[in-house]
Amino acid sequence: MKELKVTVIGGGSSYTPELINGFLKRKDELLVKEIVLFDVEMGREKVEIVSKLAERMIKKVGLKTKIRVSFDRREALEGADFVVTQFRVGGLDARARDERFPLKYNVLGQETCGPGGFAKALRTIPVILGICKDIEEVCPDAWLINFTNPSGMVTEAVKRYSNVKCIGLCNVPIHMKMTFAEVLGVKPEELFVEYIGLNHLVWAKSIYLYGKDVTKDLIEQMTDFESLSMKNIPAIDWDRDYLRAVGMFPSPYHRYYLMTQEMVKEEQEAASENGKGTRAEVVKEIEKKLFEIYKDESIDTKPKELDKRGGAYYSDAAVSLISAISNNKKEMHTVNVLNNGMLKALPDNCIIETNAIIDNTGATPILLKSPLAEEAVGLIHLVKSYEMLAVDAAVTGDKQKALKALVNNPLIPSINVAKQLLDELLTINKEYLPQFFN
Amino acid sequence: MKELKVTVIGGGSSYTPELINGFLKRKDELLVKEIVLFDVEMGREKVEIVSKLAERMIKKVGLKTKIRVSFDRREALEGADFVVTQFRVGGLDARARDERFPLKYNVLGQETCGPGGFAKALRTIPVILGICKDIEEVCPDAWLINFTNPSGMVTEAVKRYSNVKCIGLCNVPIHMKMTFAEVLGVKPEELFVEYIGLNHLVWAKSIYLYGKDVTKDLIEQMTDFESLSMKNIPAIDWDRDYLRAVGMFPSPYHRYYLMTQEMVKEEQEAASENGKGTRAEVVKEIEKKLFEIYKDESIDTKPKELDKRGGAYYSDAAVSLISAISNNKKEMHTVNVLNNGMLKALPDNCIIETNAIIDNTGATPILLKSPLAEEAVGLIHLVKSYEMLAVDAAVTGDKQKALKALVNNPLIPSINVAKQLLDELLTINKEYLPQFFN
Amino acid sequence: MKELKVTVIGGGSSYTPELINGFLKRKDELLVKEIVLFDVEMGREKVEIVSKLAERMIKKVGLKTKIRVSFDRREALEGADFVVTQFRVGGLDARARDERFPLKYNVLGQETCGPGGFAKALRTIPVILGICKDIEEVCPDAWLINFTNPSGMVTEAVKRYSNVKCIGLCNVPIHMKMTFAEVLGVKPEELFVEYIGLNHLVWAKSIYLYGKDVTKDLIEQMTDFESLSMKNIPAIDWDRDYLRAVGMFPSPYHRYYLMTQEMVKEEQEAASENGKGTRAEVVKEIEKKLFEIYKDESIDTKPKELDKRGGAYYSDAAVSLISAISNNKKEMHTVNVLNNGMLKALPDNCIIETNAIIDNTGATPILLKSPLAEEAVGLIHLVKSYEMLAVDAAVTGDKQKALKALVNNPLIPSINVAKQLLDELLTINKEYLPQFFN
Amino acid sequence: MKELKVTVIGGGSSYTPELINGFLKRKDELLVKEIVLFDVEMGREKVEIVSKLAERMIKKVGLKTKIRVSFDRREALEGADFVVTQFRVGGLDARARDERFPLKYNVLGQETCGPGGFAKALRTIPVILGICKDIEEVCPDAWLINFTNPSGMVTEAVKRYSNVKCIGLCNVPIHMKMTFAEVLGVKPEELFVEYIGLNHLVWAKSIYLYGKDVTKDLIEQMTDFESLSMKNIPAIDWDRDYLRAVGMFPSPYHRYYLMTQEMVKEEQEAASENGKGTRAEVVKEIEKKLFEIYKDESIDTKPKELDKRGGAYYSDAAVSLISAISNNKKEMHTVNVLNNGMLKALPDNCIIETNAIIDNTGATPILLKSPLAEEAVGLIHLVKSYEMLAVDAAVTGDKQKALKALVNNPLIPSINVAKQLLDELLTINKEYLPQFFN
Repeated sequence: MKELKVTVIGGGSSYTPELINGFLKRKDELLVKEIVLFDVEMGREKVEIVSKLAERMIKKVGLKTKIRVSFDRREALEGADFVVTQFRVGGLDARARDERFPLKYNVLGQETCGPGGFAKALRTIPVILGICKDIEEVCPDAWLINFTNPSGMVTEAVKRYSNVKCIGLCNVPIHMKMTFAEVLGVKPEELFVEYIGLNHLVWAKSIYLYGKDVTKDLIEQMTDFESLSMKNIPAIDWDRDYLRAVGMFPSPYHRYYLMTQEMVKEEQEAASENGKGTRAEVVKEIEKKLFEIYKDESIDTKPKELDKRGGAYYSDAAVSLISAISNNKKEMHTVNVLNNGMLKALPDNCIIETNAIIDNTGATPILLKSPLAEEAVGLIHLVKSYEMLAVDAAVTGDKQKALKALVNNPLIPSINVAKQLLDELLTINKEYLPQFFN
Repeated sequence: MKELKVTVIGGGSSYTPELINGFLKRKDELLVKEIVLFDVEMGREKVEIVSKLAERMIKKVGLKTKIRVSFDRREALEGADFVVTQFRVGGLDARARDERFPLKYNVLGQETCGPGGFAKALRTIPVILGICKDIEEVCPDAWLINFTNPSGMVTEAVKRYSNVKCIGLCNVPIHMKMTFAEVLGVKPEELFVEYIGLNHLVWAKSIYLYGKDVTKDLIEQMTDFESLSMKNIPAIDWDRDYLRAVGMFPSPYHRYYLMTQEMVKEEQEAASENGKGTRAEVVKEIEKKLFEIYKDESIDTKPKELDKRGGAYYSDAAVSLISAISNNKKEMHTVNVLNNGMLKALPDNCIIETNAIIDNTGATPILLKSPLAEEAVGLIHLVKSYEMLAVDAAVTGDKQKALKALVNNPLIPSINVAKQLLDELLTINKEYLPQFFN
Repeated sequence: MKELKVTVIGGGSSYTPELINGFLKRKDELLVKEIVLFDVEMGREKVEIVSKLAERMIKKVGLKTKIRVSFDRREALEGADFVVTQFRVGGLDARARDERFPLKYNVLGQETCGPGGFAKALRTIPVILGICKDIEEVCPDAWLINFTNPSGMVTEAVKRYSNVKCIGLCNVPIHMKMTFAEVLGVKPEELFVEYIGLNHLVWAKSIYLYGKDVTKDLIEQMTDFESLSMKNIPAIDWDRDYLRAVGMFPSPYHRYYLMTQEMVKEEQEAASENGKGTRAEVVKEIEKKLFEIYKDESIDTKPKELDKRGGAYYSDAAVSLISAISNNKKEMHTVNVLNNGMLKALPDNCIIETNAIIDNTGATPILLKSPLAEEAVGLIHLVKSYEMLAVDAAVTGDKQKALKALVNNPLIPSINVAKQLLDELLTINKEYLPQFFN
Repeated sequence: MKELKVTVIGGGSSYTPELINGFLKRKDELLVKEIVLFDVEMGREKVEIVSKLAERMIKKVGLKTKIRVSFDRREALEGADFVVTQFRVGGLDARARDERFPLKYNVLGQETCGPGGFAKALRTIPVILGICKDIEEVCPDAWLINFTNPSGMVTEAVKRYSNVKCIGLCNVPIHMKMTFAEVLGVKPEELFVEYIGLNHLVWAKSIYLYGKDVTKDLIEQMTDFESLSMKNIPAIDWDRDYLRAVGMFPSPYHRYYLMTQEMVKEEQEAASENGKGTRAEVVKEIEKKLFEIYKDESIDTKPKELDKRGGAYYSDAAVSLISAISNNKKEMHTVNVLNNGMLKALPDNCIIETNAIIDNTGATPILLKSPLAEEAVGLIHLVKSYEMLAVDAAVTGDKQKALKALVNNPLIPSINVAKQLLDELLTINKEYLPQFFN
């Protein structure tokens, strides 16, 4: 078995113990020599706390994996076999701003969708492309496993503007599959779920059990659809008539597009004076407590409090993908890959989320058993056209492209509102958006 | 020159004198033996007034064309060479309801877009398919020139569910071209305008003058964009930065999608207690006056008051199309035709609006000089997926399809609102929607 | 583990011991309750010899699988879980005619390509569709594993004209992969070979070893390309300059298209007075000897003489496919499946040969890592257009379609020759082609 | 009316009087100030003879158009509005070699198809790209009307490797239409013929008369199909059963692909000791006589002997195209243009031959009324894949690409023959193929 070096960009994330745990669970199939936790200087305190917890976790199971902290990106990447990205440009404060500023225009404020996700993409894409330049130079054979949100757009930027071997990941598909398995009372591996769409706009098109399509039965069997939500998304229930009409399962994030009015209202309440705060604000509290726990030297396993943070199955998705590549497993995963004709309406070189076979050549999508219904493709096409413009805007710093992108976002109700949102987001993110201010 | 019989379905429309005028203007190229004005019994008074005015108009120019009123559809169609449809199921009262009922949900109320247009499609499509059945039986070689709104969806229903030779028409493209020519100070025929999109969602993608693309110049030269609006659409001005960004001209109807918030507000004001009323309500007043004028036996030309009604260039579009077919002109018109690969993202068998060569074989679209930008295709795809579902719902009376259609309409902000809108529109249109109540 | 019933159509084939051997090798993963060997009355002697050998083979390894002979097709199929087809309409005599009659026109005579393969398709397709009708009625959930040649066209007929769950198989891809592995000195499972094309016109587009594309190296490393041939194809060596130019490996059968002149000459020599006879004639001799051996009651394993017959890896391909379906393995196999956009130039509903994931939902193709070069697609498109017409001709018995098919076959040098070939093949196959003589 | 300058590359061609005649016939719609006849030094004698005849022709009708001879290409192009190319690299001697060298391999020898056309493409494409470079620099707004064969490949090279505005022309479609009109006893302009395919591989897919499809009737009405041939193609008759089967009319050049065997035999006889010689050899004799006539100062009209030369309708095609552009006619012509989805199986950026609307923006193809039958697309796809490789080989001088091209040519029966043909053609054309000998 080959000895692996893994570099984690954003190593000080509160998710890191989850990732470490993933490696520990797969210690028989992955021989990890070294894990380098890279972070920026302002994250020094966090990454040092996390690295010590990681060392305790590794020691407890008797492994020899070396944990190392680095603040020098090129040095950290040198010779890496896998690079995992989980950084957040501007931290939770920037996210909180993303969530709040659209609300006064009655527009959704969210980390990955709408103007908030757009701001995040503008901040993040130049950074990931910088990382890719480093990878091309110091570890060109490394696989980049991208978890950084908005994962679809970030992966698209990497695929279109670099030569790095990159697979984008999200825990939504695995989360949905777990829910289906639970409702049906079977093991997840007994199910075949056909996923197709975009990151955070993916459909579970058909669910097969023992070779039979059970999607319709499943729509009837679920007592409610809240279990189909995730920690970070208000669990407004799906309308069963609508699910019957489409005959598929939307992702939890579809709520933002299909129940926009209700979601905005929910967010405005949370953000109001007596509300619980936006998700970022809630997460900041959780994180504060988590890091207190992480500091506790008696802790040497993944703390169960981490589950509240919202990254369920994160380590399963990431580490099992690393293992599938390393061990040439030819195993099916749901990933973000180039479209290449999977959705014929979309350009070949855009990123979609779908099932793919993972082996040492990377991710190769598998065809759909039947085409996705036109009625689902329409929204996907509109959102993807927004995303492609957003990626171009992030790379070029072109305000016209940024305006076109926002006008194409279905959550924004007019050109005028789009212009105001754009002005405000450029202002409040100025320090992270040099491409727009040269 | 062949002697033609023309049958007008909805012959009692206030537009009919416009149509008659069109035939008079082209009397040297079209030999019309008979024009049959068909209408339903409840329109008897109007159609009789209109037919007498038509007779006076024809007599004045010394033509022999016979005008005849009929209330028996099959008889009226028998042996027709051209059938022009300009009927309105439920009349202006139904249109006024279409315009009002969505407003209380803060959703656009409009004749062809949003839930209003959807209601109109549900009412109209079964009727047009009945007309087509008659045509197939009594005048199978006739050309159906469809002006009935929503023209794109109605034409799509005809193409998918009948064998009638049908071309859908709209006066928006000709209206836009006239405006461009005026701004540039040239004759319309000196311009080549590349149109692509859907009915009421069409783009003037490129405008060529003397073989050069002058689109960008034109964006700068227009002093304002109100001239790009039409009588029936609030003339909210376009943002020049946005036009520069897309580098194309949206149709007047794009306002409903790209300035939704402002348009809804405008409509709500008009519909409020002290407002001027919805467009249908305004039109009812105009029509009342028009018919008073039509009755005046001293009038024997198209009254100039008709221009307020909003159908500018209507007769030019319709009668010049009839002449291009009859005289095998191979002339370019902007029409509603089967997509067949013009927009690759859309199914082949849906209807789009674009330039086509008209001759005695019908309408043959001409290719685009370059693909429509992805950013415009996204919205078109979403709206077309809505339209295809709407057509299916209208034909089948399937409530699930109707719900899916409305959820896919970008003007409706949530599944829950869609359900409420659907319930209300079925209730208030019950007498016209037997397909949903069997 | 589920108990399986397997029905073999053409059970008296000399290949059957190979198939039985395949089941014995996989006895730990497949629990076969019963294997029914169906054949037509004229094959009674052979199927009885084969069934007794099969029983001895099974007894030797101590299994309980029941072997049964049947001459009643519906009865044989009743309740089957898998149906394997390996029949040959008209037997080897018909094949010998297929191989001989084109030669006098200087046209290739071959079992699956050219006019010989066309004749075989015309004879076989009505029979397979009859089998499918039985399957739909008596074992609708059964999987049909088709080995009957021309496998691509036969599978296409089944997919287009029945509802039977069918996967077409061929041993060419596995044969090529074994050769690549041998040359590289690695195990076949360490390689990923990207296959794309048609049955008997498939390309090994890229060969990956440890995640790297080694195709170019492999072209240089092979000392000769004869090992890339098969028992039944004259092993004329490939030109290395040509392989370098295309950068891919053609299938052994590509020789018929890319070295037509030499192949026809080789065949004409074999068929001449002093030649060794056509392949069918050679095979008849081999089969005669094989059945002598099969009769020998002391034999209770697959006789090694069977290897001369030409079906290397046949059982591996078939039985491992059955196991992958039964055991929901999600394993990659190279199969004949619906195109559905894999080759964009070809219609969605035609059959191609490519890699697919096999599980209990059937075969789902995996995308190509890059498009097949246009230069290879051209010939594939031409041959597929021939095949689609051939299938239509076989189903309808329409001579015009048959003529169009032959004119489209790249091995036939003119319309006049095509007409003569068609007349002759209809005459000499009259008893098997009732669809053309009603 | 704008005064035009027209530059003719290959001005000394025997066709030039035909072209001059075309301008004279359209003197009321085209105001030509100057026609520059450019030729290379070795064509000095011919071009001077031709220019004098041209002057006499112009004088006779009393026009003021100035005729000028030039041997300086850039000077000749300076300020041109239209550039017409009708040059022949290597002259008729090279063409004669193209026609002879393949015959000894029993392969077709022809000016535009097979290895002869390939050699011509290799010689011509670098020259046309040189011309385009000049045009880009000295007359970038000029339209290039390309008649130089192989017209499809030459036009493709221009479109892919330059920015020159270019339309490729051929007289085959107009020739076919004239024949159809004659058989039907109508005027050509009363017909609408839907053309689709490649240059010299174009189908008359449907013929409409008074809006009705009369293709099938026309197949029956023609007493023979020789009238569908052209001067330079042996008029072997089409098989009526085959035409019935395909329901379309092949171009005269289709004979080379669909009656290959007979055409090769015909050519071999012509080229044999007692034969009439190849077409180039026949043409050389005709040309010798033509130039004798051209010299005769008493001649001041197009000599009727020119009709034997084979360029019927050449001037109609070229000059009416120039007029359609100049006068913004929006008139339908059959031209060589970028595919852009007309034939979905082919890449967008390859050249096809089809109907297009001609105006001052150039040529815009019109859609097909129904897709071309798959059976015709297959051969087109194969030939186009050959053509694209041939263009690439001509531009790069890459022998591997040249070999791939020839192997993909359906007229060449094996890789080995392709290699021999390639070697020989490079040898005998060495002086014209510097790109292969650097």
